[in-house]
Amino acid sequence: MALGHERYHHRHPFHLLMHRGELTCGQLQAWALNRYYYQSKIPMKDAIILSRSDDPAFRRAWRKRILDHDGGDGQSGGIEKWIRLAEATGLPAERVISGREVLPGVRYAVDAYLNLVSQRSHLEAVASSLTEMFSRDLISLRLDALREHYPWLEPGLAYFTARLTQAPEDAAFALDWVTRHAQTREQQELVIDALRTKCDILWAQLDAIYFSYVNPGWPSPGAFQP
Amino acid sequence: MALGHERYHHRHPFHLLMHRGELTCGQLQAWALNRYYYQSKIPMKDAIILSRSDDPAFRRAWRKRILDHDGGDGQSGGIEKWIRLAEATGLPAERVISGREVLPGVRYAVDAYLNLVSQRSHLEAVASSLTEMFSRDLISLRLDALREHYPWLEPGLAYFTARLTQAPEDAAFALDWVTRHAQTREQQELVIDALRTKCDILWAQLDAIYFSYVNPGWPSPGAFQP
Repeated sequence: MALGHERYHHRHPFHLLMHRGELTCGQLQAWALNRYYYQSKIPMKDAIILSRSDDPAFRRAWRKRILDHDGGDGQSGGIEKWIRLAEATGLPAERVISGREVLPGVRYAVDAYLNLVSQRSHLEAVASSLTEMFSRDLISLRLDALREHYPWLEPGLAYFTARLTQAPEDAAFALDWVTRHAQTREQQELVIDALRTKCDILWAQLDAIYFSYVNPGWPSPGAFQP
Repeated sequence: MALGHERYHHRHPFHLLMHRGELTCGQLQAWALNRYYYQSKIPMKDAIILSRSDDPAFRRAWRKRILDHDGGDGQSGGIEKWIRLAEATGLPAERVISGREVLPGVRYAVDAYLNLVSQRSHLEAVASSLTEMFSRDLISLRLDALREHYPWLEPGLAYFTARLTQAPEDAAFALDWVTRHAQTREQQELVIDALRTKCDILWAQLDAIYFSYVNPGWPSPGAFQP
């Protein structure tokens, strides 16, 4: 789909640097710490979407996402796996979990995602998850690149290996559901717009990180200093 | 107050460039167009704050802000004056009003302000307006600098001349109200935190503009190109 090709964050210069092994350890720390804020909100985002459906079949399918991220019953979830990744960059878990040093620009973008799924139609909320259609290729490429250029990250890569199978399953369900529920031209345009907005939300997080830690700009007052 | 000295956006490098006359016309356009999105939300922000008060005296005082920005009865309000500023930079009003080319990072920061005044306590919502305590000095400096370095902006400066008197009146009311309503240490800390968050919101808008149009980074896909 053209939109994903153009706007998905696999093309963001921060990711291009990562895949070429050109990020420093401090820049990877900044990414892991800031992106944790996004990861930590995913189950809340999915619970909002679940709460807006009056269809038990939809809700049963969607709750898998909450389990995948929150874990439990002896399974570690995506959030815990992301903490392992942050620790592999050299950050203490507590510093990451506290959220104290998250860039404001990252925080606002993530919060915009929660607003989207709360305030737009249920169709648009579901459609915003369709970026997962593009995530498998990005994660697959990223795993190879991280293993090659940053082998010391290996103990932190379980998040990505789990997503290699989770994301395509989730995307297939959401794509089927959206296709069945977006019948009119107007609904299809809402779907495209929700997906575009979600791409912006992912892209804006990396802009804030790139500007503060690569370009070089300056981290906002109080934000993480590598 | 130390917080305002350190975190208010008068210290942001974008403003420092502006005051030295080192911004190009295209960069001033990008600022006027993006900042319009903030201006356009101010009366909605103030209506949310007004809607949360059960005190008619508070509501009567606060409604002045909505009038100041929306105008009416033959008076042009702050939003219309800001459009004159954008036109003075060479942008057509329609292009500014549409909001189509606003940077996502600016949009999310402004929307975070609406979330703050909706979701935190009424005390914090009012306290977030206290950045106006610092705005008179900034606007006064800016007026001198714009007249010196960008004399062709003169037809667009009415917004700032009006704010020279409006902002201190508003700030005096809010400061008095907050002082009377923040009696405990805990309340005072909420006030400080609301003011810090508001400073972050202003700062993050300029970060996004600086990164896209000065540093140089790249405007997000679909954002304004000077």
